[in-house]
Amino acid sequence: MSAEKTAISPTRAQDFPEWYQQVIKAADLAENSETRGCMVIKPWGYGIWELIQQQLDRRFKATGHQNAYFPLLIPLAYLEKEAEHAEGFATECAVVTHHRLEAVKDPVTGKTKMIPSGELAEPYVIRPTSETIIGAAFARWVESYRDLPLLINQWANVMRWEMRPRLFLRTAEFLWQEGHTAHETKEEAIDETRLMHGQYEEFLRDHLAIPVIPGEKTENERFPGADMTLTVEAMVQDKKAIQAGTSHYLGQNFSKAQNISFTGRDGTVQHAHTTSWGVSTRMIGTIIMAHSDDDGLVLPPRVATQQIVILPITPKEDTRQAVLDACQALASTLRNQSYQGDALRVHVDTRDLNGGVKKWEWIKKGVPIRIEIGPRDIETRKVCVQRRDQAVSEKQFSEKDEFIQRASDILGEIHNNLLARATAFRDENITVCDDLETFHAHWEKENPGWLYTPWAGTPEQEEVLSKQHKITIRCLPIDGVKLPATGGKCILTGGETTVRALWGRSY
Amino acid sequence: MSAEKTAISPTRAQDFPEWYQQVIKAADLAENSETRGCMVIKPWGYGIWELIQQQLDRRFKATGHQNAYFPLLIPLAYLEKEAEHAEGFATECAVVTHHRLEAVKDPVTGKTKMIPSGELAEPYVIRPTSETIIGAAFARWVESYRDLPLLINQWANVMRWEMRPRLFLRTAEFLWQEGHTAHETKEEAIDETRLMHGQYEEFLRDHLAIPVIPGEKTENERFPGADMTLTVEAMVQDKKAIQAGTSHYLGQNFSKAQNISFTGRDGTVQHAHTTSWGVSTRMIGTIIMAHSDDDGLVLPPRVATQQIVILPITPKEDTRQAVLDACQALASTLRNQSYQGDALRVHVDTRDLNGGVKKWEWIKKGVPIRIEIGPRDIETRKVCVQRRDQAVSEKQFSEKDEFIQRASDILGEIHNNLLARATAFRDENITVCDDLETFHAHWEKENPGWLYTPWAGTPEQEEVLSKQHKITIRCLPIDGVKLPATGGKCILTGGETTVRALWGRSY
Repeated sequence: MSAEKTAISPTRAQDFPEWYQQVIKAADLAENSETRGCMVIKPWGYGIWELIQQQLDRRFKATGHQNAYFPLLIPLAYLEKEAEHAEGFATECAVVTHHRLEAVKDPVTGKTKMIPSGELAEPYVIRPTSETIIGAAFARWVESYRDLPLLINQWANVMRWEMRPRLFLRTAEFLWQEGHTAHETKEEAIDETRLMHGQYEEFLRDHLAIPVIPGEKTENERFPGADMTLTVEAMVQDKKAIQAGTSHYLGQNFSKAQNISFTGRDGTVQHAHTTSWGVSTRMIGTIIMAHSDDDGLVLPPRVATQQIVILPITPKEDTRQAVLDACQALASTLRNQSYQGDALRVHVDTRDLNGGVKKWEWIKKGVPIRIEIGPRDIETRKVCVQRRDQAVSEKQFSEKDEFIQRASDILGEIHNNLLARATAFRDENITVCDDLETFHAHWEKENPGWLYTPWAGTPEQEEVLSKQHKITIRCLPIDGVKLPATGGKCILTGGETTVRALWGRSY
Repeated sequence: MSAEKTAISPTRAQDFPEWYQQVIKAADLAENSETRGCMVIKPWGYGIWELIQQQLDRRFKATGHQNAYFPLLIPLAYLEKEAEHAEGFATECAVVTHHRLEAVKDPVTGKTKMIPSGELAEPYVIRPTSETIIGAAFARWVESYRDLPLLINQWANVMRWEMRPRLFLRTAEFLWQEGHTAHETKEEAIDETRLMHGQYEEFLRDHLAIPVIPGEKTENERFPGADMTLTVEAMVQDKKAIQAGTSHYLGQNFSKAQNISFTGRDGTVQHAHTTSWGVSTRMIGTIIMAHSDDDGLVLPPRVATQQIVILPITPKEDTRQAVLDACQALASTLRNQSYQGDALRVHVDTRDLNGGVKKWEWIKKGVPIRIEIGPRDIETRKVCVQRRDQAVSEKQFSEKDEFIQRASDILGEIHNNLLARATAFRDENITVCDDLETFHAHWEKENPGWLYTPWAGTPEQEEVLSKQHKITIRCLPIDGVKLPATGGKCILTGGETTVRALWGRSY
């Protein structure tokens, strides 16, 4: 083998799932804990989440939403009210049954042990999602059409007992935001569902450099209790799909179950139309799988915990302080610049470590721009610029003043490069398929990518195909999405159809 | 009765606890939920919390801390490791014992019910605080003295099963931040404990206009498992104390229980010295009780969800649009001004409601400055300014341009007024007490205020006095706090002492 040495082993090509774990470890993003399926999000990973939160939160507020906070624990009686919803989450609910601990002596070992005590008359579940408990509040708050629309968002932790957890992508506890809104009419609620779906699509593209396919879920794949589920589907580098965010029109299902009713303009009592929509820490997993390479994490600049890291090169003691001062001065100047409305995040790595070790650490952590400054550079007023979207060996020497002027533009270029690369990859790996034989054969391939087909099958037929090939319809892409043209006959039934389905394997 | 009519009934003097509930309701801050002891924090209340978070978070980052996130659920085995800690929280732990629900038909009613299923081999408790689970991570992360100090903060929800819940002050679930740090030496850990204690004192004074007494808790009142607990104690308007924040030096208690050990500079393996410190949504309850009046909430400007509300006065249809435009233009201009580094938060209330109704709503919500603009004011370029720290009937007409220039200063004046008022009230209600007879008699009074005494009693003696009068030693104030001079003999034992204790009733 003459393969180039990479910082992450195995490489993506060798073992994608294991590569993913190793990137998380090398970038120090998160780790497993002894709480089953729950992760510890470490500072470098949590910093990404804080940026996602800030930037999404601005979008939510700009579209008229307000934040609020609702209880972690949901009375079982609430969940039971919407049968389909309850059934959808029943197999993954953490249940609180006691409200204290009691110390007892183990008769065998003699050791003191804590056991649950104070059994609750009615158990609670830890929220897997909050439609039911927020709906109960909405029922109290809404009386008249004048109280509508009610536009609420919550930032919270939720819990779903996952049997096969995977850091960021599928954890028992995760952090998310859940929007919950109530409206006077179906039209307004559907407009809201589409508006937030559009916000997610834009956010993923413009902040995370991830080009998603927006579309609608089929009935089989809908959120339990929803009339319509919109999704944004990302393709990652093993050609699998990640559902990166969803926006649901819940019809009057929850409002009828929970009596969110109001006196309308005509004086009659009506049930509100509700929506819910959410994205989670899963987006961090999506970023990793979409952009990272065999040297580690590659962060899109807008959500990079640090955007620029400055490495002082200090070979000699007598010029050391001057180099450090120059680095700090450059950092201060850069922090007064901004990219996409936020001050640049710049870090000077002053640790007394080997320069190569430090450099590789920041490569693995995915910092968009690395700057090196040595004694000679101070005299020549130059800086050595290295970009995470280019090969590790590439470097440009740049006038310091020119770099200061261009720093924000370079971050923009990196963003655009990541987006263009991911878009090209996605488009290469979506294949039009008009006949069933090709469809069946496709899923025998290794890392098969997505198929785009005319579709008129029933939910049952969809399920048969899904189970047979371990695939799902990721979505029925919405109008206006540029996908290749297909024929008009359903691959399965042969019936004429205008519906197009996007099939793939997924996380 | 010739009492003035007030917006809140009862008044503070009539029934302080009920007044508190009514202020929360009138300001639309929060409400009880059907989850026992858990509240819903509504947008106006959550907005205050968001500002507290942002501003505290900047202080934590400026003092070198990084945010991270740890699991909600703590294995029982973790809690058992530090016996004193486990015992301290055992009676208020919510326990998760099952991980799914099962639908069963009730044989009597025929209805389907959900019951807990999938019993866990080892139950979990919902974190009442995270020393144990964060300590387990620290044990993995720390190997050498080079990994120290480790300075971590977490923003999270926690749960303590409270028997007598009260909105914001004592709820089963609450939101907080918990700092957790590990250090090489005792001295460094104590420095950190004091540093964060000082940050809390400053934050309460400079952001919330609450003048706290900083001090140390006695052994009886310490955090379970701590060697030293520092506290900031606020006096509210019924002269009770609220513990508004605490900072603990945990010694090596947790590091020994959890094996947070490192190889020291001398090559020996040592246990780290740890600290923890936290403040919570309880601060919102403290703000309400410290500053509000019989007309409702009074918000300190830095954490006011809106700082300025502009009310268009539109008596006639033909000038209506011009007034609305003038209000929006003023709001835009003001939003470009800043107060204490943050852009002014300005809202124009354009709702088509009676002007008096709108005005009283903002009074009850505690907005620091209300502005009215009517048709005549447009011509004269004046605005009518009303301040929440002044009587409702008071108003000043001001040149619009002058107001724009002064808006930030006025917010500063309001802050200073609230702080001065609260400081004077506190100082009036701390009484020096040098003899036991006066001490005993004091607690027979209604709303007795605090006593400041020389103290050399034992923990047992402290407990006897505490139980007898339903009081506690709030703290042993630290040096440098300006409190009146006292004699040198312990009020109980008569022994010479330099220790001074501050006694009071508390929430």
